[in-house]
Amino acid sequence: MVWDKELARELYGLTGNIWSKYLDIDERGRLIVKLKGYKIDLAKLLSEKKLPGAHIRILPIIRYMMDKVYEAFMEAFRKFGYEGEFKPVYPLKSNSTTIVVDTIWQYGVKYNWGFNAGTYPEIKLLSKYTNKKPRLLVVDGIKDNKILDLLVKMNDNWEIIVDIESMRDADLLSKYRDLNIGLRIKVVSKSSGLWSHSSGLDSKFGLLINTLDEIIKEHPWIPGRTVLLHVHAGSQITDKNKLENIIRETITLYNSLVNTGFKNIRYIDFGGGLAYPYVEASDHMFSSNYSLNEYAEILVKEVVESAENIPGIVFEGGRYIVAPHRITVTKIIDTRPYSTPEDDETSYPIVEEIKNAENIKELVYVSRRAREIITRLMIKSPINIETRRMLEKLLGSITKAITCKAYEIISKDKDNALKELTRTPNFVFEELVKPSHRFFASFSLFSHLPDTIVADQYFKVTPLQRLNEKPEVLGVISDLTCDSMGEYSAFATSLPSNIETGTEDLFTSLDHKLMFIPGKTLRLKGIPLHIPRKNENYYIAFLDTGAYQDMLSMNHNLLDGYPEIIIDIVNDDLKIQYKNLETTENYPF
Amino acid sequence: MVWDKELARELYGLTGNIWSKYLDIDERGRLIVKLKGYKIDLAKLLSEKKLPGAHIRILPIIRYMMDKVYEAFMEAFRKFGYEGEFKPVYPLKSNSTTIVVDTIWQYGVKYNWGFNAGTYPEIKLLSKYTNKKPRLLVVDGIKDNKILDLLVKMNDNWEIIVDIESMRDADLLSKYRDLNIGLRIKVVSKSSGLWSHSSGLDSKFGLLINTLDEIIKEHPWIPGRTVLLHVHAGSQITDKNKLENIIRETITLYNSLVNTGFKNIRYIDFGGGLAYPYVEASDHMFSSNYSLNEYAEILVKEVVESAENIPGIVFEGGRYIVAPHRITVTKIIDTRPYSTPEDDETSYPIVEEIKNAENIKELVYVSRRAREIITRLMIKSPINIETRRMLEKLLGSITKAITCKAYEIISKDKDNALKELTRTPNFVFEELVKPSHRFFASFSLFSHLPDTIVADQYFKVTPLQRLNEKPEVLGVISDLTCDSMGEYSAFATSLPSNIETGTEDLFTSLDHKLMFIPGKTLRLKGIPLHIPRKNENYYIAFLDTGAYQDMLSMNHNLLDGYPEIIIDIVNDDLKIQYKNLETTENYPF
Repeated sequence: MVWDKELARELYGLTGNIWSKYLDIDERGRLIVKLKGYKIDLAKLLSEKKLPGAHIRILPIIRYMMDKVYEAFMEAFRKFGYEGEFKPVYPLKSNSTTIVVDTIWQYGVKYNWGFNAGTYPEIKLLSKYTNKKPRLLVVDGIKDNKILDLLVKMNDNWEIIVDIESMRDADLLSKYRDLNIGLRIKVVSKSSGLWSHSSGLDSKFGLLINTLDEIIKEHPWIPGRTVLLHVHAGSQITDKNKLENIIRETITLYNSLVNTGFKNIRYIDFGGGLAYPYVEASDHMFSSNYSLNEYAEILVKEVVESAENIPGIVFEGGRYIVAPHRITVTKIIDTRPYSTPEDDETSYPIVEEIKNAENIKELVYVSRRAREIITRLMIKSPINIETRRMLEKLLGSITKAITCKAYEIISKDKDNALKELTRTPNFVFEELVKPSHRFFASFSLFSHLPDTIVADQYFKVTPLQRLNEKPEVLGVISDLTCDSMGEYSAFATSLPSNIETGTEDLFTSLDHKLMFIPGKTLRLKGIPLHIPRKNENYYIAFLDTGAYQDMLSMNHNLLDGYPEIIIDIVNDDLKIQYKNLETTENYPF
Repeated sequence: MVWDKELARELYGLTGNIWSKYLDIDERGRLIVKLKGYKIDLAKLLSEKKLPGAHIRILPIIRYMMDKVYEAFMEAFRKFGYEGEFKPVYPLKSNSTTIVVDTIWQYGVKYNWGFNAGTYPEIKLLSKYTNKKPRLLVVDGIKDNKILDLLVKMNDNWEIIVDIESMRDADLLSKYRDLNIGLRIKVVSKSSGLWSHSSGLDSKFGLLINTLDEIIKEHPWIPGRTVLLHVHAGSQITDKNKLENIIRETITLYNSLVNTGFKNIRYIDFGGGLAYPYVEASDHMFSSNYSLNEYAEILVKEVVESAENIPGIVFEGGRYIVAPHRITVTKIIDTRPYSTPEDDETSYPIVEEIKNAENIKELVYVSRRAREIITRLMIKSPINIETRRMLEKLLGSITKAITCKAYEIISKDKDNALKELTRTPNFVFEELVKPSHRFFASFSLFSHLPDTIVADQYFKVTPLQRLNEKPEVLGVISDLTCDSMGEYSAFATSLPSNIETGTEDLFTSLDHKLMFIPGKTLRLKGIPLHIPRKNENYYIAFLDTGAYQDMLSMNHNLLDGYPEIIIDIVNDDLKIQYKNLETTENYPF
């Protein structure tokens, strides 16, 4: 089989219902955004303006995600005969960039989409929005008089619910009689729950039942004013069973409240658990084992079957709504090999031994020996420049010999060799998925993809061009900061087992690294990329960077800000807007 | 022994030569900054202006650290008869806040203190500084024509050295003949070196020797223009042996260059390895096993004894110079117990068993059983409100019984009981160092102490008041963000073995948690604090927040900025300046 754009689409994960809808690869192998019949060449958007990179915001994707969520719930409502109210709210913490909030506010008219806020500046930001039909605003976090005064002012234009999470909250709220009350209560349905610091009874958010009992003794008005039960299950819950347990526990709690004097309680807010599929690979911590539709069904079914008075459902979707709208693109400006190809043909005995291996088992064995030799050489400190030169050559030769030999063995006996290779952790597999090049990109991971630093967040990466050419090498992506944490190298591949491939399709063309095995999830330590040609504008894109990354941006090495390209469809016309162009100065092109 | 401020000083680590010089506790138990005979009550600085918190910047500390570094090297120079040049440079990445850079620039006149920069905005920031005597500016990072053009303009006022780290750098610099060259070369002297991604041959920064050979073939002018050998050993190297190995390897490399045609090479920049002592505890990853003076001695001795032409020494101290100048203070605004004290006297069999334990061994055994009982109860999903209420009570009773019993046993047979308690990991010790309260502070860890999120960075924490009262509880400090990562709970104690204490001194007064054992390093999971009284302004301080925290600040939940209090001595007069007061609006008081 010859490399083609369909294989590229699978390799880079341009699949799933969001990216197969919005992204395509054109005949020249370039990544295209599809919007209402328009085809937008992303690399061209940048190279024409000589941009070192940009955040590309595709506003119709936010609207699409809102539609998807709404429809998923409506379908579940029909299926299970739910007749309560649906109250979606958007938590500002996910992204409170003006253009994002405006988009959600405006498009939210038709669904009466509400908001969730947790701090004074977030509430202040919302206070400028007013509407004929009041939208729900759920307020959690630490309150003070300034916040509550502002909420009282907003109380006519919004349906405001303020969470009580402590005696202090109750004391404060006792003086604000017009504000409806939510109770944020800890849930314990997590395997690690009780003894773990960040979840269960010891978690940062929510009330203990015994604390609630105490508070009510002091503030007997609480049951009458409470309209909402709110739980915080945790962000991005990827396991369906855990999700089901939390939903069941929440409804059990709700029923108890209904039956013990909470006569006006009428909503449940299940918190932000819905996982966004950052990767479709199975068995990956950034993928989930359920879909949006399943999420809605699990939730609605449980409510209909178990809740005593049918409560309204508050859906607190943040990450899911905004994650895909931002694509971060950056230009590769320097490429550095991990080892320099030898021009002399010095032969090392251990390299000869590698070349003589007859199967994967033998190759694994001799690779372990090679590593021992290197380690022994390294220990002799201090290493002088001649030893160092030799070491670098030896290491390069070993790596090359292992990858070439592995390729040769797999070519001869593909299925068995691959099975042996992936059976247990081993040095040969490690070498095969290890990068051979460092790609310096004109951006800052700290500023533009902070969650790669903060939380080892996984993002899909794809080149914007040459997608019709087989990738040449595995590369780690380094940023401009003087910080060794400023590197990204995670890449998961999970191609279907029925894809037809020859041995050569599995490997990069220059460094002979393994990219994928059909029907298996591989975690590579580098991204399959092409070596940029002289004067080529070689761009790569990180997908799904629209949630949290704007808010967590850091100013390391004074690299803050990035150009933005806002793409929208207004009255069926394509509208492309450039912003923050002054920030290009800070980034090499 | 009665609790006193000397014990508080030891407990909170207000020791070492920086903090015993600048901080004191007054008769009322309040934390005082001592500056030239002035005594500054920190809590008063804040409460008078009703500040929710502030970054307190003490500029004389920056100058003191510069003096200390300079003197340590001068002493080492005298000791080993070094007669080369000393060239300290400040890397802007550590903190490029205007007031910090201004202070270093101005005070740096007398030492001719230079700078290190890695990005265009950093170089632009420096370009405004000019001086009669040129200062050294070492430029690393990714270059482009814009950067090099700017450096050419600055070349008269600065002694500029630009690092080459790749063929691309050499290509660029071949056209800028007036700029001196540094070679940044990878070092491999790390135990984990060769096969590890972030250090050694695979590290982000620096040249391979074989790459250097290739570059020189293309650019034969390099040996003649090279004046500096630069290595990046890694930030905050806490192990003396590792440090020595890196220094030796670097000098070996330097000698090779001297002997192979690098006739003008005359400086070595050893990079930023000097560790700042964030904690004095032995065996802690944020403490080091050497002092500043030892650092200077190791380095100078090695240079004098082994370097072939005595090179000038470039000292790249960033973290060490600026870490202690900023103290971050924040007010506690809400306190929530982990469990609510029972008012009924329900007796649980397992609690009775705990009360009957006769020694630590028995207590450990029965505690494990208690945990099993709880876990079994938790598995019954979904938990209804009655079970939950009982669970919370049971858990509270178990915790209380374990801590009280441990206290009782230790009182009777202190030395043996403590030995048994700390011999192996066990649930009793876990309970004794686990927080019992959550303290909500009016700040954001993401914004004000980002490295607690990014790198699990350890900072000393101390209350600003009541230091003459024994701490009442162990508490976790939670911030205002709606993010479960926004919590801080690390506290290491390491009190001298000769300190005289009774059993009661080791324990907090309300929740009976263990704070320290003389002669041992303990890692608590909570901070020893007092429960704020009604309407009390209870402030806590994080020390040593002056390096990197300003640069990595994140805008989570729109909580950005914080009031600043700048303290300085100008012509022997105390000068206190408030800044950013408009940001107080965002934080509850």
